[in-house]
Amino acid sequence: MSGKPARARYTEERGEGAPADDRGVARRLFAILDAFTTPTLASSLSLTAIADRAGLPLSTTHRMVAEWVSWGGLTRQDDGRYSLGMRLWEVGVQTPTARNLRTIALPYLEDLYESSREHVHLAVLDGLDALYLEKLSGHHAVRVISRVGGRLPLHSTGVGLVLLAYAPNDLIDAYLSGSLDKYLPGTVTSPEELRRRLAGIRTEGVAVMSEEMTAGSSSLAAPIRDRTGRVVAAVSIVTRTSPFAPHKPDPAHEQAVRAAAHGVSRALGYRRSDS
Amino acid sequence: MSGKPARARYTEERGEGAPADDRGVARRLFAILDAFTTPTLASSLSLTAIADRAGLPLSTTHRMVAEWVSWGGLTRQDDGRYSLGMRLWEVGVQTPTARNLRTIALPYLEDLYESSREHVHLAVLDGLDALYLEKLSGHHAVRVISRVGGRLPLHSTGVGLVLLAYAPNDLIDAYLSGSLDKYLPGTVTSPEELRRRLAGIRTEGVAVMSEEMTAGSSSLAAPIRDRTGRVVAAVSIVTRTSPFAPHKPDPAHEQAVRAAAHGVSRALGYRRSDS
Repeated sequence: MSGKPARARYTEERGEGAPADDRGVARRLFAILDAFTTPTLASSLSLTAIADRAGLPLSTTHRMVAEWVSWGGLTRQDDGRYSLGMRLWEVGVQTPTARNLRTIALPYLEDLYESSREHVHLAVLDGLDALYLEKLSGHHAVRVISRVGGRLPLHSTGVGLVLLAYAPNDLIDAYLSGSLDKYLPGTVTSPEELRRRLAGIRTEGVAVMSEEMTAGSSSLAAPIRDRTGRVVAAVSIVTRTSPFAPHKPDPAHEQAVRAAAHGVSRALGYRRSDS
Repeated sequence: MSGKPARARYTEERGEGAPADDRGVARRLFAILDAFTTPTLASSLSLTAIADRAGLPLSTTHRMVAEWVSWGGLTRQDDGRYSLGMRLWEVGVQTPTARNLRTIALPYLEDLYESSREHVHLAVLDGLDALYLEKLSGHHAVRVISRVGGRLPLHSTGVGLVLLAYAPNDLIDAYLSGSLDKYLPGTVTSPEELRRRLAGIRTEGVAVMSEEMTAGSSSLAAPIRDRTGRVVAAVSIVTRTSPFAPHKPDPAHEQAVRAAAHGVSRALGYRRSDS
């Protein structure tokens, strides 16, 4: 590769001054962690499975896993398999966005949950996905597929449509030019129809979905704004679809979702110009 | 250090087969992350502050931070400072203990919050600390110092005393032989008195604290057991201390905390022998 004598390369590439090598180790360490969430979430994995998912030799995997275990990012279970460790959770929950938004929003989400007794979701835009920051659920709420830390598409969820509606135009263009999966017969996947829908959400300040992601469930979502007026999150309730009026939201639910979104926005410092 | 020629050391120490070097890089990467939580939680840090807290040269810090940013574990803010990134949160919330326990417990915690309108805490034993997994708070609940992902001592918090009471004897011995801080005049710090207190908690199945960690607040905590009967967590409510009966818990609160702990335990598969 290089014409330099071995000793010169050696001196450059090890210890504090070795950028290329650092990068390799860092990438391998991250690949180990990613193995637990990609391609599917795994609550525990054998060493072989980690190596397989990370695309690394078993010996390298063994060493990298040992480093994560010594820090607390992975835990070795009694059965010899590994799982994500509490240290990772402990650091992860300190992420400012997650921590601040969640802390500020939680009392309002609780009020919304109490008044509706339905799933209450809080999500933010992350890349081209809706990332679920919080989910409150009763013992008997309708079954849905969202989970805290999980990602769902923007065009087929209530919070997703709200986040997309208020996103920058280049992000909307990028999203709508990508592949738009049809999860149920009712999922809207036409870019033109979605653009009209996004415009409607911006006018109404609320997104109404029915039977587009999960059969039997409907969603009502509203935007949360920060001090500068920028939409930073969306809140929704997900309810069982009414067999009598599947596309007509319950006015009390709509009122409650709007109130929760306004409450969180006010708590974030937002003052509406019209109020 | 070693008598081997440079080339031999070079071959051993770089690339896939370089355990010692991998370890150094891993330790430096983790030191970068730890800088955000130690000695105090920092929501953002400059590169210099990270280097300072991590005890690393600026150039090394620069490279390691770049690796974290490329993975999403750190985010570079508009002002040039760095904060913990959403990818870390996303992976962290998938930690099985936090995820499963929290998911199962949340509906019961919500019921407890609704019936009491006070702070509701869920904590697990981690090392010799109470680690707070969840906290539900109303808009107007009494001010306390706990936070999700935060740690508090075992001898001066309700959840901590419960976790300590049911911990293995060697852990109790280790904890009581360490230094026991006196946060308020009422904090019990005598190992003998604490042992009597732990025995009382095991008999009563509930811990009652008043004015031992935060002035003006009292706590009621109960153990959560898993399928095998082992205590895996504690739930509490933290209330304003009554000026009339500071050491006498509200019977309705005590009943509600016990019911929540039993509910979560049952959901985890626990069946009491006497029921």
